[in-house]
Amino acid sequence: MSEPYRIGLLGHGTVGSAFAQLLEERAEEIARVTGRRPEIAGILTRSRGSFDEILASSDMIVEVMGGVDPTRDYVLRALRAGKPVITANKQLLSRHGEELYAAAREHRAPLRFEAAVGGVVPVIRVLRESLAGAHVERVHGIVNGTTNFILTRMAETGASYEDALAEAQRLGYAEADPTEDVTGADAAAKMAILARLAFNTPVTLDEVRFDGIAEITADDIQYARDFGLSLKLLGTAERVDGGISVRVHPAFLYAAHPLASINGPFNAVTIESPAITEITLSGPGAGGPQTASAVLGDVVSAMTPPESPSAWAPAEAPHKLPVVTDVASAFYLHMEVADQPGVLGEIAQVLGLQGVSVRSFVQKGLGANARLVMVLHPVLESRLQVALKLIAGLPFVRKPPRAIPVIDEEF
Amino acid sequence: MSEPYRIGLLGHGTVGSAFAQLLEERAEEIARVTGRRPEIAGILTRSRGSFDEILASSDMIVEVMGGVDPTRDYVLRALRAGKPVITANKQLLSRHGEELYAAAREHRAPLRFEAAVGGVVPVIRVLRESLAGAHVERVHGIVNGTTNFILTRMAETGASYEDALAEAQRLGYAEADPTEDVTGADAAAKMAILARLAFNTPVTLDEVRFDGIAEITADDIQYARDFGLSLKLLGTAERVDGGISVRVHPAFLYAAHPLASINGPFNAVTIESPAITEITLSGPGAGGPQTASAVLGDVVSAMTPPESPSAWAPAEAPHKLPVVTDVASAFYLHMEVADQPGVLGEIAQVLGLQGVSVRSFVQKGLGANARLVMVLHPVLESRLQVALKLIAGLPFVRKPPRAIPVIDEEF
Repeated sequence: MSEPYRIGLLGHGTVGSAFAQLLEERAEEIARVTGRRPEIAGILTRSRGSFDEILASSDMIVEVMGGVDPTRDYVLRALRAGKPVITANKQLLSRHGEELYAAAREHRAPLRFEAAVGGVVPVIRVLRESLAGAHVERVHGIVNGTTNFILTRMAETGASYEDALAEAQRLGYAEADPTEDVTGADAAAKMAILARLAFNTPVTLDEVRFDGIAEITADDIQYARDFGLSLKLLGTAERVDGGISVRVHPAFLYAAHPLASINGPFNAVTIESPAITEITLSGPGAGGPQTASAVLGDVVSAMTPPESPSAWAPAEAPHKLPVVTDVASAFYLHMEVADQPGVLGEIAQVLGLQGVSVRSFVQKGLGANARLVMVLHPVLESRLQVALKLIAGLPFVRKPPRAIPVIDEEF
Repeated sequence: MSEPYRIGLLGHGTVGSAFAQLLEERAEEIARVTGRRPEIAGILTRSRGSFDEILASSDMIVEVMGGVDPTRDYVLRALRAGKPVITANKQLLSRHGEELYAAAREHRAPLRFEAAVGGVVPVIRVLRESLAGAHVERVHGIVNGTTNFILTRMAETGASYEDALAEAQRLGYAEADPTEDVTGADAAAKMAILARLAFNTPVTLDEVRFDGIAEITADDIQYARDFGLSLKLLGTAERVDGGISVRVHPAFLYAAHPLASINGPFNAVTIESPAITEITLSGPGAGGPQTASAVLGDVVSAMTPPESPSAWAPAEAPHKLPVVTDVASAFYLHMEVADQPGVLGEIAQVLGLQGVSVRSFVQKGLGANARLVMVLHPVLESRLQVALKLIAGLPFVRKPPRAIPVIDEEF
């Protein structure tokens, strides 16, 4: 047996300790597959260890400490030393990806990051490798297990957002401060990484529009169910008019959509391409052992990397595709209105003047509680916004209307 | 730009011609990623071309002609010449896999076969690479789109097996001779390949038990639906008592199972492992363009392979795990009985004596049409078979009872 393969581990929290344990359990099997037995050469935490010493004594760096500073510096120095880096750090990659990818290519050091997106769902590998020869048109993802758990509970039990969040916190699916998850910021970082790979164009976090779930009411979920729709916090990365759009927002899916049945703290991604139609990958969202397993798959691959630019990092992007901000979508529309004749007619007229046509509608409640709920045919968001402002100004409309995109299969 | 990368193409049917077209469309992009532009160096069909000439003038062989003879010889000769081989040939791999894998390892020639299983669903790559460090406990697969289409139509419309098959043939989802598909033989070959990778033990087609869908009635599907079950032709590869079981048969799934919602001509695979819980991969079954896309992903990977045994072929199996033939399962049981008092009691007694307990049951029909439909708790198949024989001998049982396994979540 040749000499051991030494891994420097940055971070020793939930993921780091799960990784160290899993590595030990699987070391023999990995030695059989790769020819070398992996072992932990050193561990750096925020309070102990020297990065320089660990780097010098390691063949590879595994970064699971998170954050951008000093992690970015550590990862860059490891790559510049020609050492493979495995990271689970979505913030780092979505903000500084191009800099890291360039360093990896220049120094021929593999940079792998399966664990940054999708928990155990191997979407990074599938995009980078299985679909390396394909032209990807669109990626849809449920990439945040916390919000999917909350929305699932709201749909199942009729709970309010606040109650479902509290339940998620009790069960360990949401953190004490859930801001990153519920605002969509976490999902936005992941979608930036997926879009970079899918379209081979630089995408940074600040180009991803995101909107969270805190405004969603149990009523919205219930009404939409009458139309056969279920609500998800959906990430979308798609080609639009020669550019791309990357965004995260609540969206309603028809029952036949492959992501409509993804419930609870799960992640799932659908990749569409003319040659393959579509692939869906799903599995539990990131917990410590799941993330550790994704890291380990990358470790094994990077222990014997091919001599190929594509194995070091995503290829250099030939050009930057423009970000399109005004995209078309179908919409669910919720309006609190006075219960009087002619309301539907006037609203339909306002919508019609903006080129918005109604696909289906239903009236809910009576008297002071009357609501109109509609599903609209696809329309440019800018036109819908104009229509919404006009509707909000109508005398019989009691509150600003609420619009949520609907992923329309026929669209 | 360095010189082109020459691909020898064996077979020019639906998949071969779709591959040649896709390769041309994507050649520039592949050149950007790998550094070399791929092109077709020669095409061999059963009626034209010389294998020797094509082998000599190619850097890689893509085999999509199918069959075992002369394909096995061609693939072996290419590997012995040190040339990467991409194949979509499930028959060849499920019968002669070990011989081919050994040749690939010995001559350091990558052998890749994503397109052999699962259409565009990248299950081979995920098992070989993402889960290279994991311990896989079980693989469940819907790996035949034809039978999944037929069963879906039977469930949706109440059609008979014969009518649903005829519809599948009209739509191009079933061949004129559907034997390979409907008997489960096609799925069995694919499960042999998956089991080989999941458990790192030799598995050949003749070790896979399979049973098809021709005996399924619309009634079975309808009755089982009352229990919340849906019927699939399910492949299973699992560790059992220090050995493995690999089998294909109709099975009922509870609605919450990730494969229960896979409808129409789709493929899906669920991989279970302690570290990852489970991953589900799904997508359309193999059509020409889908298979070509899977082949192309392999071509790109094999153009710049790592210097690693695991990249050439599945690792040499350390030992052969025994095949366990008698496994436990829950069952759906359908019995045509006389409509008289005491029937349920006697049947329950016979089952009880064999250690089989009833989870739920319902009586269907009246008089000459009376049936008992049950779901049983898990029991060894051998014990169930004894019970079935005894039940068939009871005076009030009009026809031999029918049993179909149920995948029990709690089990």
